[in-house]
Amino acid sequence: MSSDQNNAVILLSGGMDSATVLAIAREQGYACHALSFRYGQRHGAELQAAARVAKTLGAVQHRVMDLDLSLFGGSALTDTRIDLPESPGEGIPVTYVPARNTVFLSVALAWAEVLQARHIFIGVNAVDYSGYPDCRPAFIEAFEHLANLATRAGVEGQHLTIHAPLQQMSKAEIIRRGVALGVDFAETVTCYGADDSGRACGVCDACRLRIQGFEEAGLPDVTRYLARPEP
Amino acid sequence: MSSDQNNAVILLSGGMDSATVLAIAREQGYACHALSFRYGQRHGAELQAAARVAKTLGAVQHRVMDLDLSLFGGSALTDTRIDLPESPGEGIPVTYVPARNTVFLSVALAWAEVLQARHIFIGVNAVDYSGYPDCRPAFIEAFEHLANLATRAGVEGQHLTIHAPLQQMSKAEIIRRGVALGVDFAETVTCYGADDSGRACGVCDACRLRIQGFEEAGLPDVTRYLARPEP
Repeated sequence: MSSDQNNAVILLSGGMDSATVLAIAREQGYACHALSFRYGQRHGAELQAAARVAKTLGAVQHRVMDLDLSLFGGSALTDTRIDLPESPGEGIPVTYVPARNTVFLSVALAWAEVLQARHIFIGVNAVDYSGYPDCRPAFIEAFEHLANLATRAGVEGQHLTIHAPLQQMSKAEIIRRGVALGVDFAETVTCYGADDSGRACGVCDACRLRIQGFEEAGLPDVTRYLARPEP
Repeated sequence: MSSDQNNAVILLSGGMDSATVLAIAREQGYACHALSFRYGQRHGAELQAAARVAKTLGAVQHRVMDLDLSLFGGSALTDTRIDLPESPGEGIPVTYVPARNTVFLSVALAWAEVLQARHIFIGVNAVDYSGYPDCRPAFIEAFEHLANLATRAGVEGQHLTIHAPLQQMSKAEIIRRGVALGVDFAETVTCYGADDSGRACGVCDACRLRIQGFEEAGLPDVTRYLARPEP
């Protein structure tokens, strides 16, 4: 095990946000160790997307951890008995997976500790935290505080940082930044109900936000859609 | 999904501490949902112990989540290339699993959210936190703060509590308390290198602390040992 101040763990879902985060971390000079989860998603397309993105954007390595949150149910993303929403509702969406970001950051922390990495990157952003409690800035701050108490690094007086570079960005800004850094968004999958080849449904919450994001960014939407709703 | 103020998630390893925690939570009137992990331990004896203990002490249910922390290595408990210590050393022990309690509490939080449980119990204690950063009281407080920011409960103004009832107790006090509450410690496995039938090695750190605990408690040690070192 060698100490490397340059190592960073990047949570990589295969979606557009985390791909942009990986591109940002690489631009900042970090050696990026990408981490994805097989957590009971409805489809495997996003993990294939994560593998493509990790390779294209120059991650040092990419690991996928099995962590079956569908054991507990409670989310439309992991529980097939709950219907996917076609439009945003009030409050916390049914697509919220209980404590998902807490669990993902914790596992990233475990890996960071083994790698002696002092940096963890996560792609939470303003659009999400309107509905998901674990996307709020206060949550990220609380996790950073915890991380420094939970680890050797903290005991040894070193500081571990949780980076959430998209936190204050709109979807359109994320897309512009990603394109500027060479992210090929055609490689990414955002859709909650993508088919096996990664084609997007075009109608779920995530697709609507993505479509709107490209429109607002004034950039061509390279996503492959099965159907595309009328604007 | 029904709301139940009485529901609690109990982290149950199969060792003596978490068995005592389960007994304490039951005595306090909680409906106990026991959670264990198949996280890459060297042996399966402790999971069998957890199943026995959950049943004997009246848990409502017991679930085992697969979460392979050995994917990252870095601990003698999950990495067979690192030798187990025969006596306590300086600083953080090699048996420390990076960020383990953070990961376990996070998954417990996910389940608590689905169960609408407001209580999570964990068996960290004073003997452990001399060496493990994620057993310190400040760590538990930081996790509770995080839990309330990370979840629906927090957003909806309800409070989630992390209970660590053994925190200030010595091993001897834990044993006395457990025996008083009807814990059969013969059902538990503490040893880092137990054999398949749950017999303890008698020489590792965990065995030494256990032997010493029974001696200090002035109670007969019901553990089945393969070998027992001279005092």
